[in-house]
Amino acid sequence: MRTLKLTTSYDGTAYGGWQRQNNVDTIQARLEAALAEVEGRRVTVHGAGRTDAGVHALGQVASFTLVHRIETPALARALNAKLPSDIRVLGVEEADPQFHAQYAAKRKRYRYRIDRAAVASPMERRYAWHVQEALDIQRMAAAGATLVGRHDFSAFQTAASEAGVLSTVRTIFELGVTEESERLVVVEVEGSGFLRYMVRTIVGTLVEVGMGRRPANDMAAVLASLARSRAGPTAPAHGLFLVHVDYQDA
Amino acid sequence: MRTLKLTTSYDGTAYGGWQRQNNVDTIQARLEAALAEVEGRRVTVHGAGRTDAGVHALGQVASFTLVHRIETPALARALNAKLPSDIRVLGVEEADPQFHAQYAAKRKRYRYRIDRAAVASPMERRYAWHVQEALDIQRMAAAGATLVGRHDFSAFQTAASEAGVLSTVRTIFELGVTEESERLVVVEVEGSGFLRYMVRTIVGTLVEVGMGRRPANDMAAVLASLARSRAGPTAPAHGLFLVHVDYQDA
Repeated sequence: MRTLKLTTSYDGTAYGGWQRQNNVDTIQARLEAALAEVEGRRVTVHGAGRTDAGVHALGQVASFTLVHRIETPALARALNAKLPSDIRVLGVEEADPQFHAQYAAKRKRYRYRIDRAAVASPMERRYAWHVQEALDIQRMAAAGATLVGRHDFSAFQTAASEAGVLSTVRTIFELGVTEESERLVVVEVEGSGFLRYMVRTIVGTLVEVGMGRRPANDMAAVLASLARSRAGPTAPAHGLFLVHVDYQDA
Repeated sequence: MRTLKLTTSYDGTAYGGWQRQNNVDTIQARLEAALAEVEGRRVTVHGAGRTDAGVHALGQVASFTLVHRIETPALARALNAKLPSDIRVLGVEEADPQFHAQYAAKRKRYRYRIDRAAVASPMERRYAWHVQEALDIQRMAAAGATLVGRHDFSAFQTAASEAGVLSTVRTIFELGVTEESERLVVVEVEGSGFLRYMVRTIVGTLVEVGMGRRPANDMAAVLASLARSRAGPTAPAHGLFLVHVDYQDA
């Protein structure tokens, strides 16, 4: 039995998220179906993070075990031949027998793309949130910086997540807000892990700061409140990308 | 009767090109349908260039006449409310009564995007041609430079276009090949006008040069031959963008 580590990029537009569900097309189900064709029996895939419906990935990581002795480059090619073009396997490698993509993950990096042109770009309509109001990027960056560190991020998780059951303490190592081009603003955040909707709620709150609807130093108060009602709206899923999962301590 | 100039951006993936056709969804038909709703009767739109099926636009220009006195910003908003999200009106402005988007065009700029990563990006699958072989960008740029100037571009037009009926002489003012990122190569070309499939055939030939399948100085021989059979394959439509149409002499 081999343990394998797979890196995948996908366009989440057509999927109900990462996680396998009945009667919903998901990334996990597609990968498992492709792997089952190779293995000749059911294969369970564990993803580093359960991206929500509509969220994309540039470098999601998954682990699974296989009996089949196919070499890793041939496996990657075989999977890409079976998968639809909106899910691609970037690579497969041998891993330690105990490797688990979710539990072993040390850091995750997410990117959120905002299209702030007067009229939304048709080519960005699936890959960026269109925000028509003027955004003060420096204020957004200053507000974002106050979230860096080890904190209880309860204020930024979805009200529907299992609050209290698991720890809501996470560490954000880095949070940057940059103007990638005249029209594109990018929020990039790296952390030890993220609560459900946490990145999107941070972005929704940062955009309110950028619009001048709340002061930049409001972020610290929202964080300290531990109250979801104090944060801004959840930014839409289609602007969010899981960029990278890191398994090394920094 | 007012003459208006409209600038539009579209994702060509779902359309059979610019030009109105029976039983095919096209950009021109969509714009005309939206304008007819405003005007209360049929409106004919003239596009600067007839982009082919699957080709995108960042700044296509169209002209039309209108009796309705709606102000131009309100007209742009009304059209965007009626159009699907893969077609956007970037702006509308009053034009000289004799303005015609096709006949008055002085220069057009096209961009062709090539994804040369080992595995095609799901997010680029509609917006870039995936070329897996290594490309020598400097050779491509040198080959492209030999096309700059006023030439008979018969070798680069589709065999099916009306050769001989209209002049096949065009001027290329600029042709650049650049590495926009590690994975993305961009061919950008500006000219007085382009024959059908001309940009895509130039790109298909440049890619053969980049792969080392033909020498860089072969371009001059292909051009001089006036023979379509001497040029490379037509690059796929989905990597091509009409960037800009210019109505001023340079």
